[in-house]
Amino acid sequence: MNAPSHSTNISQIRSDIASGELTVEQSVRRSFDAAHASQAALQAFVHLPDTPAVNAANPAAPLAGVAVAVKDIIDTADMPTEFNSRAYKGRRPERDAWVVARLRAAGASILGKTVTTEFAWRHPGPTVNPWNPEHTPGGSSSGSAAAVAAGIVPLALGTQTQGSVIRPAAYCGVVGFKPSYGTIARTGVLPLAWSLDHVGLFTTNVADAVHVLGLVSGTDAGDPHALNAEPSAGRPGARRIGVLSKQVGGAIDEAQQLALDRLAARLASEGAEIVEVDLDAELAEAANHALTLMAVEAAVTHGDLAERSPDLVSVAMRSLVEEGRNVPATLYAQTRQLQLRMARRFNRWLTETMGLDALLVAPATGEAPRGLDYTGDASFCAPWTLLGVPAVTVPAGFGPAGLPLGAQLVGAAHGDAALLSLAQWVEARTEWKALVKTRFAAAN
Amino acid sequence: MNAPSHSTNISQIRSDIASGELTVEQSVRRSFDAAHASQAALQAFVHLPDTPAVNAANPAAPLAGVAVAVKDIIDTADMPTEFNSRAYKGRRPERDAWVVARLRAAGASILGKTVTTEFAWRHPGPTVNPWNPEHTPGGSSSGSAAAVAAGIVPLALGTQTQGSVIRPAAYCGVVGFKPSYGTIARTGVLPLAWSLDHVGLFTTNVADAVHVLGLVSGTDAGDPHALNAEPSAGRPGARRIGVLSKQVGGAIDEAQQLALDRLAARLASEGAEIVEVDLDAELAEAANHALTLMAVEAAVTHGDLAERSPDLVSVAMRSLVEEGRNVPATLYAQTRQLQLRMARRFNRWLTETMGLDALLVAPATGEAPRGLDYTGDASFCAPWTLLGVPAVTVPAGFGPAGLPLGAQLVGAAHGDAALLSLAQWVEARTEWKALVKTRFAAAN
Repeated sequence: MNAPSHSTNISQIRSDIASGELTVEQSVRRSFDAAHASQAALQAFVHLPDTPAVNAANPAAPLAGVAVAVKDIIDTADMPTEFNSRAYKGRRPERDAWVVARLRAAGASILGKTVTTEFAWRHPGPTVNPWNPEHTPGGSSSGSAAAVAAGIVPLALGTQTQGSVIRPAAYCGVVGFKPSYGTIARTGVLPLAWSLDHVGLFTTNVADAVHVLGLVSGTDAGDPHALNAEPSAGRPGARRIGVLSKQVGGAIDEAQQLALDRLAARLASEGAEIVEVDLDAELAEAANHALTLMAVEAAVTHGDLAERSPDLVSVAMRSLVEEGRNVPATLYAQTRQLQLRMARRFNRWLTETMGLDALLVAPATGEAPRGLDYTGDASFCAPWTLLGVPAVTVPAGFGPAGLPLGAQLVGAAHGDAALLSLAQWVEARTEWKALVKTRFAAAN
Repeated sequence: MNAPSHSTNISQIRSDIASGELTVEQSVRRSFDAAHASQAALQAFVHLPDTPAVNAANPAAPLAGVAVAVKDIIDTADMPTEFNSRAYKGRRPERDAWVVARLRAAGASILGKTVTTEFAWRHPGPTVNPWNPEHTPGGSSSGSAAAVAAGIVPLALGTQTQGSVIRPAAYCGVVGFKPSYGTIARTGVLPLAWSLDHVGLFTTNVADAVHVLGLVSGTDAGDPHALNAEPSAGRPGARRIGVLSKQVGGAIDEAQQLALDRLAARLASEGAEIVEVDLDAELAEAANHALTLMAVEAAVTHGDLAERSPDLVSVAMRSLVEEGRNVPATLYAQTRQLQLRMARRFNRWLTETMGLDALLVAPATGEAPRGLDYTGDASFCAPWTLLGVPAVTVPAGFGPAGLPLGAQLVGAAHGDAALLSLAQWVEARTEWKALVKTRFAAAN
C-alpha cells in the first residue's frame, strides 16, 4: 500500500461542487468507497456504516460534500462511541459532541469513527501506517491520521493530550493542527486529562485547516475551559522563526534534523529570518509535569472502572490510574499553577523577548517506529500541549525507511490564525510535493 | 465608640472637589486624621504612615481625593505588606498589586494597610467592631470593613476566599461587594486559595461600588484566572428575586430572618417579584468542597513555611496546611471539576430555570459575635464564593445587641453590573438610613 492513494482536499471538493462537476452525494460516496476498500488492510475505522450518511441539506454549506472521520472518543449520536475500550462496547451517546454538531451544521457528513488507542492513552489499536503497514501510524489518533493520509477523507478529528495529533500527522505525512488550549470546545469528548486535552484537526493541507478552524472554534458552557480569549492577530507577513539548538524532547534522528535544517535554509533563502534559540531549562521538565496532571485526571475519569473491572482495562491505563492515585493534591495543584506560569513565561519569551512568530521544531524523533505496539514518543509535542500554545505539523520529507517526516511550527497562545498563515507559507516551501511526485512516478 | 463617626462617600467627595469646596489634599487629610484619631481604639490599620501620601496629580481623576485602605495581603510598593504574619515582618514588595496600581492611576490615594487575619485565614488581628468594641468586625478583611464603617475612608480593598468581604461588611454595617471570580485581577495579592480568591470592595453605598468596579475590573497576565468573559447585561430594570426557604449556610438568628423578611416584603410592595425557592441539595456541600480546595492550595502556598518555621505560623494555618497535605490529588482534581460543574448548573438554574435576577440571602447568622477570637461563620458566603458568582451585602437593620445586620444579594456569573444595579434599588428601600438617624438622634 502506498499513500496517498488519491489526493483529496476540501477546497477542491468545494470548487467541484460549486461548478457542478461533483455532487455532495458523489463526494461523500467517494470517501465511503475508499474507506471500505482500504479498511481490511488499513484498519483506520472502528465503525463504518454500511451506507453513507450523506448530509445533503445545503450544497452551498462550507463543508458540503466533505466526509469527516471522527476519532472514537468524540461522541456521535448516530454511531457508537466506544473509546477502544472493552468496557464500553456498544456505547451509543445520546448527543453529538459539540464539535461534531458544528461540523454537521457546516454541511459536513460524518463518515465513520476512527481507531484510537484505548481512552486515548497508550494501549494501541490495529491501524497501520498507510506508507508501510509494518509501522505504527502513531497515536492516540491513529485512525484519523491514517484515514487522511490514505486519501480517504479530506478531514479528520483527533485529540491531543500529549502528542496525539501532531505525532501521528507527522508519521503519516499529513497536516496536523492542535489549536490553542480551549479554542475548540470539548463538550462530548472523553477527557483523558482536561488540563491538557485539545481537539485537533487532520487535513491534507494547511489552507483546509484554516477553513475548518473558522467553523469549529468556539466556546460551550459544557466545556469550562473553552476559549474566552480574543484570538491574537500576530504580525501579518512577519516570518521570524526560531530553531532550537537542542530539541526539547531529546535526541532526534539524523534524517529528522536534516529535514529541519534543509527547510530552515530554504525559508531563510526566501526571506524568513531564522534565529537559533535556547529554550528555558524549565521546559525540559514539561513532559514530567504533563504526566503528573494526566495521571491524576485520568484516575478521576477512569479510576472507578479500573478498580471495579480491572480485566476490562489495559495494563497501560491501570498503571496510569495507579500512578495518579498516589499523587498528593499539593503536587497536582502546584503543577497546575506551574503550567499556567510556564505558559505565561513562554508566551512572553516568544513574542516579547525573542520577537519570534514561531518556533520550527521536530514533531517526533523522526519516522514512525516499526511495529504496532508502540505509537511513538510524545516528548516533542507534550511541552507545547502543556503550554496550551498552537502547534501545526506539515509533511517535510522522507526518512531512510521511506516514511514521512514532519516539521512542527509552534506559536504563541491564541495566535492560531497567525501560526496557520505562517504554516501555509512554510508548507509551500517544503520538498514534500516534489518528493511525493517523484516517488509515485518511480512506483508507476 | 459609635459608627459611622462621619459619613463619607466617593460621589460627595467628587462633587465637593469639582465645585472647589474641597481640595484633593483636604479630602485625603480628613481620612488621614480620622485614621490616626481612631487607631488606638479601633485598630483598623497595621501600617499608617506619619504623613499622608496624597495623589494630587490630577484633581479631575475619577478617584481624586479618595483615600483607600488596603488589606495587608495586597502589595503596595510604598508600604510594607506583611500578611499579619510573624514570618513576614518588614516585608516590602517591589511593586504595587495590579488593583492598587489601577486605583492610583484613577487618582486614588493609598492611606494605609489594614489588619487582616494571618494570611487571610482564621488567626485574628486586633481590630474591633466600630459599633461595639467587644465584638469582632468579622474577617479576614477586618480592618478594611472597620475603616469604612468608622467613616475613615470611603473605599477599602478586601479579599474573599470564603466570606471575608461579605461577612465583615454585614457585621460592620457597610456595603461589601465580591465581584464574579476573575473580575478583578489578583496579581500582587497573596493567594489563600487561587481557585476561590476574589478581590472585593468595601464602600458606604452601592453607587460608589459601581463607580469603582468600572475602574478596577480587568485582566492581567499575572493572574491566570482573570476575567475573559463578557460581562452579562442582565435584564435591565427586572426585579425577580428569589428568597430561600432554607438558608444555605444553616440556621440563622431570628433577627436576621426578620430583617430579610421585612426587606422582602418592602421590595414586593414596591413592585419586585419575590419567589420562594429551594436550592440544589448539592450546594449544601459547598462549604466542604471549598475547604478541600482551600486546604490544598494553602498548603502549596504556606506549606514550606509551616514546616520550616512552625513557631512563626498560627495553629489555625498549620492545621489547614496539614489537612491540605493529606488530600489525594484525585479528590482535589475532582473537586475543581465539581466546582466548575456546580457553577454552570447554578447559573443555568438561576437565570434560565427560575428566571431570577438575584437571590436575597443572609450574609451571616446575624450580628457580629461577641469577642475578637472568632471572626464568625463564613458558611453563608462560601457557596457563592465557590461558585464564583457576584455577591453584595447592604446594611439592612440592627439586631438585639445593637449591631448591624446585612442583606446579601447573589447574582449570575458576570452579571456584576446588573446585580449592583438591583442592589442600588434594594439599598434605597432598606430601613438602614432611618434607623441610623434615629439611633444617632437618640445618642445625642
